Amino acid sequence: MMKLYSAVGTCALATHIALEEAGADYEVEFLDFSSKAQAQPSYLNVNAKGRVPALVTDRGVLTETPAILHYLAAAYPDAGLAPRDDIFALARMNEFNSYLCSTVHVAHAHKQRGHRWADEPSSFEDMRRKIPETATANFTAIEKHMFKGPWVMGDDYSAADGYLFTVSGWLKGDGVDIAIFPAIADHNKRMRDRPAVAKALSMLPS
Amino acid sequence: MMKLYSAVGTCALATHIALEEAGADYEVEFLDFSSKAQAQPSYLNVNAKGRVPALVTDRGVLTETPAILHYLAAAYPDAGLAPRDDIFALARMNEFNSYLCSTVHVAHAHKQRGHRWADEPSSFEDMRRKIPETATANFTAIEKHMFKGPWVMGDDYSAADGYLFTVSGWLKGDGVDIAIFPAIADHNKRMRDRPAVAKALSMLPS
Repeated sequence: MMKLYSAVGTCALATHIALEEAGADYEVEFLDFSSKAQAQPSYLNVNAKGRVPALVTDRGVLTETPAILHYLAAAYPDAGLAPRDDIFALARMNEFNSYLCSTVHVAHAHKQRGHRWADEPSSFEDMRRKIPETATANFTAIEKHMFKGPWVMGDDYSAADGYLFTVSGWLKGDGVDIAIFPAIADHNKRMRDRPAVAKALSMLPS
Repeated sequence: MMKLYSAVGTCALATHIALEEAGADYEVEFLDFSSKAQAQPSYLNVNAKGRVPALVTDRGVLTETPAILHYLAAAYPDAGLAPRDDIFALARMNEFNSYLCSTVHVAHAHKQRGHRWADEPSSFEDMRRKIPETATANFTAIEKHMFKGPWVMGDDYSAADGYLFTVSGWLKGDGVDIAIFPAIADHNKRMRDRPAVAKALSMLPS
């Protein structure tokens, strides 16, 4: 059985949704970030990065959402998590997930994790002020250039949808009204109707 | 024939090396970042992100280094760019590439691209000061937890090696002596002996 380490409000939700979509045999443990559980030696022994997600498999611990989503798509070929038989379409999904990871998530992280890249409180404030601007620019690019509809990749659902659902869920807290992106707002709403998404959301600790 | 858009000193070198390793039929155009060629309408029509790499294929333009490297490994199965027949080993390569993209490259980008995440000159200075610290932390993690040797993934060369070679080449400019990471320094040196790497480096405009 696999084990997912997750935390409320993090990108680990994307992996959680994929596990549910795949019908995988797994358990999930939510780390309490407010007490810095992710920095405890017991967790650092699992994932030296001190972040989530970490997916414990029988061959080792996997991290990095784009890599995990691609792995789950390959491990559960019948789950339809990726266009596995078309290497270009698969590259498109990986490209989208990489953009969410390295651009969209990174921009969002500047709100509360500015200490990763700077030291001064004035810099942290400056970064926080810019979040609505960067989030708006990133989601405008997604809506305009990347999202095909009705799902991210077009007609077929993929693991990229759970990832987009996860990061678009951060918009409100980042001071951006998701309604200014009609396609993404509609996607977010439809995602909640999927049993796998509802199940993953229901498991979040209150 | 594919076409790679690249620029000196960027992560596009990793794709260029992979194209050479694959024996692909391609051409390369180097954009002059000093004249902001990447922000010209003619290039934005190719890649709306205004960055490199962009790989023009007969099915469309691909961006995001981890996605491109995985695509080339699949498109040139005999080139040995990835452990294609072992989904867990393949996930390990994708995990490594995702870390380079979303953590190592992002940290490096705070030296000259602070305007992506902040507005004040004092913030940019603060970010620049922190580069040696973050670069050291990231490459320490690679040397200690990720790099297997003699290649990134162990006995077999993969596209991750060209990517590590590319980003470890930024250390000197980021104020960090690569010699403090013996395995990565040795890797960087051995990479230069590979014909594909020497070829890609020889094509860089002076």
